[in-house]
Amino acid sequence: MVDTVKKLVILGSTGSIGSQTLDIVRKYPERYKVIGLAGGNNRSLLNRQVDEFKPDYIYHLGIDNAGTNAHPKTMSLEAMVELPEADLVVMALSGNSGILPTFTAVKAGKMIALANKESLVAAGELITDAAVKSGTKILPVDSEHSAIWQCLAGEESKPNRLILTASGGPFRRYTQEELVKVTPEQALRHPSWNMGKKVTIDSATLMNKGLEIIEAHWLFNMPFEQISVIIHPQSIIHSMVEFADGAVKGQLGYPDMRLPIQYALSCPKRLPNEDLPKLDFTTIKSLVFEPPDFKAFPCLNLAVEAGKRGGTYPAVLSAADECAVMCFLEGQIGFTDIPRLVEESLIAHKSVGTPGIEDIRDAGEWVRRRFAGN
Amino acid sequence: MVDTVKKLVILGSTGSIGSQTLDIVRKYPERYKVIGLAGGNNRSLLNRQVDEFKPDYIYHLGIDNAGTNAHPKTMSLEAMVELPEADLVVMALSGNSGILPTFTAVKAGKMIALANKESLVAAGELITDAAVKSGTKILPVDSEHSAIWQCLAGEESKPNRLILTASGGPFRRYTQEELVKVTPEQALRHPSWNMGKKVTIDSATLMNKGLEIIEAHWLFNMPFEQISVIIHPQSIIHSMVEFADGAVKGQLGYPDMRLPIQYALSCPKRLPNEDLPKLDFTTIKSLVFEPPDFKAFPCLNLAVEAGKRGGTYPAVLSAADECAVMCFLEGQIGFTDIPRLVEESLIAHKSVGTPGIEDIRDAGEWVRRRFAGN
Repeated sequence: MVDTVKKLVILGSTGSIGSQTLDIVRKYPERYKVIGLAGGNNRSLLNRQVDEFKPDYIYHLGIDNAGTNAHPKTMSLEAMVELPEADLVVMALSGNSGILPTFTAVKAGKMIALANKESLVAAGELITDAAVKSGTKILPVDSEHSAIWQCLAGEESKPNRLILTASGGPFRRYTQEELVKVTPEQALRHPSWNMGKKVTIDSATLMNKGLEIIEAHWLFNMPFEQISVIIHPQSIIHSMVEFADGAVKGQLGYPDMRLPIQYALSCPKRLPNEDLPKLDFTTIKSLVFEPPDFKAFPCLNLAVEAGKRGGTYPAVLSAADECAVMCFLEGQIGFTDIPRLVEESLIAHKSVGTPGIEDIRDAGEWVRRRFAGN
Repeated sequence: MVDTVKKLVILGSTGSIGSQTLDIVRKYPERYKVIGLAGGNNRSLLNRQVDEFKPDYIYHLGIDNAGTNAHPKTMSLEAMVELPEADLVVMALSGNSGILPTFTAVKAGKMIALANKESLVAAGELITDAAVKSGTKILPVDSEHSAIWQCLAGEESKPNRLILTASGGPFRRYTQEELVKVTPEQALRHPSWNMGKKVTIDSATLMNKGLEIIEAHWLFNMPFEQISVIIHPQSIIHSMVEFADGAVKGQLGYPDMRLPIQYALSCPKRLPNEDLPKLDFTTIKSLVFEPPDFKAFPCLNLAVEAGKRGGTYPAVLSAADECAVMCFLEGQIGFTDIPRLVEESLIAHKSVGTPGIEDIRDAGEWVRRRFAGN
């Protein structure tokens, strides 16, 4: 027996998460229907997606999205996430461009499958408050947060602690001295996950895990003191939850983003998918753990500190990291300059107490001007 | 805010599980009230428990339990599990003596926290059918089944596979030749769990895991083909569930029976308990896995085979194992004679198709006569 068809709006459909979301839709055409697609610069891929999935609405960069009579209709991102017929918005835009559409969707009471990190990092309080007010839910798509969310299913009591696992990136066990010499080519070789450039560098600095701590804080309403990180290089245990009685639940799987994407689409049900790899413990042999090196990887503590201070500090953290990573990839700065420049931005910043969406945008702009001036 | 007090009947209160159940009751006197206690030969411990917990009813071996006017009233096991005021029966009797009281409690519609292995192994079909008819639930107390049950919380879809973890016992990686020479003293040294003699030997032969496969089959209504075993010597992951989408959830903790006991008492809630150890992944360092050696440990396949054949075969498996373990502990037979004698009993047995409780008892008696004659 099949439930009613879920109507999806997918923002960032030509990216990695967007494309994998469409893989799931392709597999279950009786369950999911794409009504809106928004892509970036890869116009030819977007065209192919439009031909295949026949959405009613599209958005793409470089054209006037004010609306035409052609089919599919072009539409702004903000209008698309408010479409009355949309059941679920998949937010797979990367970077700061995701914040405003996420906020708009949540205010409109749309259920949102959230893959955009910046939204909750920069505007976590605003967005989670809006979700409570509009009565909607934010479903995580990140593998770590999805794991935590899966572990919380059916649990009535507040957990003790969230345990985020981190691969440790390609420079696990490097000393501070060794990190100074790291090149972009080395940093782009991630041991277990195949991702975009920005998130791969964030994974190497552990800023990625820092941002995930802030996201977890907002998604699961947990104090920073009750969120911990453990290095687990194989990325098999995607994260864990410790409950009041000391029981820990973890979600395991090979690194594959299709699982958390599909779970966000299908939850609370799970759909059989033979394309997804099944764990084989006889080949896994062992799962290893070690504490993170907070000294060699200062981004972790910078993120927690910014998260605890709140205001516009997390927005500055996120924007400064984006700028610094760009500079690193372009060969302008070294690897260990990333946390240094992020920290300098945080120190120089004057935070707004309870920021609105404009304050958050302004904080990001302030950072970008600062980096442009450097 | 505290819920209404749960009234407990504890069968086997002087044993390891029974005593640890009383530890939980002692910790939460506002949540749990003991109304019935049944002990075995340790009369002085039972007396102390009666003084402390002041049950209304007791049962103990060696006296007439037909009922007296003294307080607490003595009562038969069958009458105690049917007490109208009982909210939960904790079934911690060991061995075959647990089968009939379990069946009686379930028929009476009593919620039951089940630590007695033999009940579901020997009479799984009968007892689970009775639970469906009376509309009650069987809550597992075993750490493996509790782990699976915790992982299934909140899941709407039928799982793909249950993955029982096994410590592998003290003779992991022993060859068949090495196992021949094993002594009871060696077999009683379990690497991770501190348990009774019978279950410790079962752990060394892996019969324990075989019996747990049969229990899991009945508790979670899973075909034997979808239940697998993986050796995990540290006993930190207590068991796992693989779902339709390939996601695996596991429950982790240090080996401590108080956790599954407390969860059976408190579920679906969890209660804070600072006495229970909290996992520290920085000291765990690694979790290892290896496939079981079905050749050196034939009890695993014997159990699966008996489980698949059904009828009175599982009852014979259980009784023959009990007899063989006793012979081994008394020095009458060698370690590898345990599976051999169990297999011989299974081969010699003529099973009853859909056994009633008497057929199951008779099958056990047949085995015991057989062993007495040997």
